[in-house]
Amino acid sequence: MAAASKTAFTVWVTGLPASGKRALALEVARLLRARGRAVEVIDSGRLRQTPLGASLGFSRDDRETNVRRHAMAAAMLTRNGVVAVISAVSPYRSTRDAIRAELGEFIEVWASTPPDACKQRDTSGNWARALAGELKGFTGVDAPYQAPTDPSAVANIAEESVEAAAARVLGVIDARGWSVPDATDEDSNRLAEQLQVLGYSD
Amino acid sequence: MAAASKTAFTVWVTGLPASGKRALALEVARLLRARGRAVEVIDSGRLRQTPLGASLGFSRDDRETNVRRHAMAAAMLTRNGVVAVISAVSPYRSTRDAIRAELGEFIEVWASTPPDACKQRDTSGNWARALAGELKGFTGVDAPYQAPTDPSAVANIAEESVEAAAARVLGVIDARGWSVPDATDEDSNRLAEQLQVLGYSD
Repeated sequence: MAAASKTAFTVWVTGLPASGKRALALEVARLLRARGRAVEVIDSGRLRQTPLGASLGFSRDDRETNVRRHAMAAAMLTRNGVVAVISAVSPYRSTRDAIRAELGEFIEVWASTPPDACKQRDTSGNWARALAGELKGFTGVDAPYQAPTDPSAVANIAEESVEAAAARVLGVIDARGWSVPDATDEDSNRLAEQLQVLGYSD
Repeated sequence: MAAASKTAFTVWVTGLPASGKRALALEVARLLRARGRAVEVIDSGRLRQTPLGASLGFSRDDRETNVRRHAMAAAMLTRNGVVAVISAVSPYRSTRDAIRAELGEFIEVWASTPPDACKQRDTSGNWARALAGELKGFTGVDAPYQAPTDPSAVANIAEESVEAAAARVLGVIDARGWSVPDATDEDSNRLAEQLQVLGYSD
């Protein structure tokens, strides 16, 4: 049971641009770290600004490569005991299904926030530019988004808080027995609770 | 001391094509795993065959991007407690020095095997093709290799075994206090020794 409580796994958050994927990924990571787990968050938008994402555009091929890179990173992390939390539009169902099959312990989370709410949440102006025709190949406007047919968790950030959604994702992880708190974890939890009471957060 | 004994770090093996980098990286990783450490080996040549390396050529810019990707992966691993062992030609000194500064706990290992020995070791035929002018931009032939000026360890695989060189690299790691065997590690060591006596290896 001690070994089972430390299974590494991937949480893959998919959804439209500005659907709240990144906030959800960060909150799931925060909760897992409070249990003493090593967790890496990889945000697709940010990765594109690094050498890992450089030279990639938004064609179907480039999107595929981008998503595959996230999967490679997740594989590298999880086989070394680190939890990978990925936030990526990852619009194609077939690609996500292939990655799920490769990665093994995998939770697909659909950030289901509706397009109108995404537009309102968007601080980058990309939704507006895409709707005005100034930005081509934008997922949700003129590029397809294929929603998961059987996600492990669904989070509509227009109707619930990021915290509530993240707690539900933790519930899914717990139900699979991948991160059962052990003695050390309980210490971490107690410390995390104390810090929260004191008004600190990590 | 318990915390210090589990410092994550990067071992960066640089050298000419076919200088024995990969074999050395794998042996260093084997020794560290026998101590119970989580270790990821990233081999530049193999990475180029994956989505992470796709679309990269051998121009100076593409080489730079390739090496930067390795550094990003190493950063991601080491900040989560995983040892990164990188095998990459990484021909430019300035790039390696920049990466060393970014990564913190970093050991530069120079696979110093001389060009003639590399040619003999080469099973890919790339050295021969480059020397015949059929392959352009090949490090050691018509593209530069800038040897480290102050490497942490040097390994000439033409003159010593991979095992002897790897043991010396472990000595450097031990001297820095990054992987001091603790009680659990001693158990791992004992197990590893028993397996070796029995003729098994990992």
